[in-house]
Amino acid sequence: MYKCYKVYMETALISRGQVAELLTLDICIDAVESAFRLLGEGKVARPETLGVHVADGGFHVKAGAAALDREWFAAKINANFPRNPDRFGLPTIQGLVCLFDAENGEPLALLDSTELTALRTAAATGVAAKHLARPDSTTATVVGCGRQGKAQLRALGRVLQLGRAFALDADPARAEGYANDMASELAIEVTPVEDLPFALSETDVLVTCTPSRTPFVRRKDVRPGTFIAAVGADDEGKHEIEEALMAASVVVVDLLPQAALIGDLHHAIARGHMRVEDVRAELGAVVAGRAPGRTSLEEITIFDSTGIALQDLVAAVAVYERALGRAARFNFAG
Amino acid sequence: MYKCYKVYMETALISRGQVAELLTLDICIDAVESAFRLLGEGKVARPETLGVHVADGGFHVKAGAAALDREWFAAKINANFPRNPDRFGLPTIQGLVCLFDAENGEPLALLDSTELTALRTAAATGVAAKHLARPDSTTATVVGCGRQGKAQLRALGRVLQLGRAFALDADPARAEGYANDMASELAIEVTPVEDLPFALSETDVLVTCTPSRTPFVRRKDVRPGTFIAAVGADDEGKHEIEEALMAASVVVVDLLPQAALIGDLHHAIARGHMRVEDVRAELGAVVAGRAPGRTSLEEITIFDSTGIALQDLVAAVAVYERALGRAARFNFAG
Repeated sequence: MYKCYKVYMETALISRGQVAELLTLDICIDAVESAFRLLGEGKVARPETLGVHVADGGFHVKAGAAALDREWFAAKINANFPRNPDRFGLPTIQGLVCLFDAENGEPLALLDSTELTALRTAAATGVAAKHLARPDSTTATVVGCGRQGKAQLRALGRVLQLGRAFALDADPARAEGYANDMASELAIEVTPVEDLPFALSETDVLVTCTPSRTPFVRRKDVRPGTFIAAVGADDEGKHEIEEALMAASVVVVDLLPQAALIGDLHHAIARGHMRVEDVRAELGAVVAGRAPGRTSLEEITIFDSTGIALQDLVAAVAVYERALGRAARFNFAG
Repeated sequence: MYKCYKVYMETALISRGQVAELLTLDICIDAVESAFRLLGEGKVARPETLGVHVADGGFHVKAGAAALDREWFAAKINANFPRNPDRFGLPTIQGLVCLFDAENGEPLALLDSTELTALRTAAATGVAAKHLARPDSTTATVVGCGRQGKAQLRALGRVLQLGRAFALDADPARAEGYANDMASELAIEVTPVEDLPFALSETDVLVTCTPSRTPFVRRKDVRPGTFIAAVGADDEGKHEIEEALMAASVVVVDLLPQAALIGDLHHAIARGHMRVEDVRAELGAVVAGRAPGRTSLEEITIFDSTGIALQDLVAAVAVYERALGRAARFNFAG
């Protein structure tokens, strides 16, 4: 039998700084949109996930495969330790994306996941906003003024003509710092506020990206036509959007079984306000044109974002292809 | 608030050759036995797994956490591409073990998984043989003369006083090469044979480590008192041990839900020969002294081995601690 002996590839090692340098939001939004389109067209396997809890936090693995220019597999291992910033000066989210060749199983690249997770999460909001926000949206509110909150506002700025934004945080000083930073970065008016109902009365697009375990966005405060990206809830305990607001809105999710388990959708279902069938669609179906996005200027639309492996995969591929020839390398097979 | 800013650790990178050099079978058997003991004592979380199928193979992730000298988390990502050796000259199994600090989520080490998987699998057989084989066992038979078959016989040699062995393979030339290699390495008589019933008539300990999808070990051929390590079946399609033989034997598994899903146990249950309750115990309970192992010289004992994350974790920790100061390093947080 003829055997084709392949030369072992070395695995590329890509740091947080390199990810930040190589993965622009525009690249990431395009990649994430195509990932959702493939999912919506049924052209990729449904991604998988597992979780392991430990005393001070937990680990989640999200894994998926997709045929793009070639066959890829990616597994992201993220550690989530909420007390890390205070205890150790470490980020809450740390981890690695492991990118493999899905034709022969070789490990192609290992990428720090901290920046990549922030960017691909923001990119999903950008994609959702394209399809679910009113095109004339100009005013955004961001609740949760951390690293993710910055990436979220940047992503909205790539897909909407934002003129101003409100910034809220449990720590008012943090909201103030955020407002200063983002105003000068995006050249829009950014106002730190403490009164969410006031901000919502002038808001077209709301992003929630907090670790809250109690819902704080109420139906009575949200005006018609608002688009909400509900980003914070990514485990069964986190909760940002009141169940009645979920039930009164058009809800689009990234991955239905996952959102029903760990998203804000989970709470609306658990308390009898919604059924799984009440969800309009997965974002992929909307992007693929198989389900409607926003259908009127009046409806409130909510994107329940829990984060899926395909976002990590396409973002990692985008970085890997740009890092080729520049990344450090290690031969694990050696 | 006082903040303790931790210096970012660099992640250790450990190649296949270093794993082979640093992880001896004795170290690995000790580590794997203590992992099963912790599991049997209920001192570790039950490990988790996920799988993604692709056209030519698939990927599995096995993840678990354990408190040893410190808190650890490990996720092993293994690619399984059965046609790799013929198509690309690559191993069937490739992958990485990602070892994390489970107090703050930092990635401590990345290890090639090929050799580690072979050794931790063989080590589990060694641990099982200590508890389930007759102590006077001297004759082993190994079916499946690949890399794993070699590690298996080596592991048996560490825990039993072997005097001779039989070697079988679908490819007789491979069995012959195996017999030559292992005879000189272990200084015992190793005979390549093609007649399994003949070999079994003189066998105390049988290891099956093949990719077979049809059972080939039959009840009528196995003599009383035999210990069988059923290692090959690790997905729902693989099958080595006849259902009637499973039902007639004392069955011990590594992880009950997993063996019931993908081990030889799965087939015995699916075809009505066994119920989950017929399994004597998980190996961990036997090691911890909470369930009996072999209770007579006459019974046939079977260890249904499907492979669990804790084996990978303890093996990776053993390598990592020995590699400190010698391994290459990369700063993913940089």
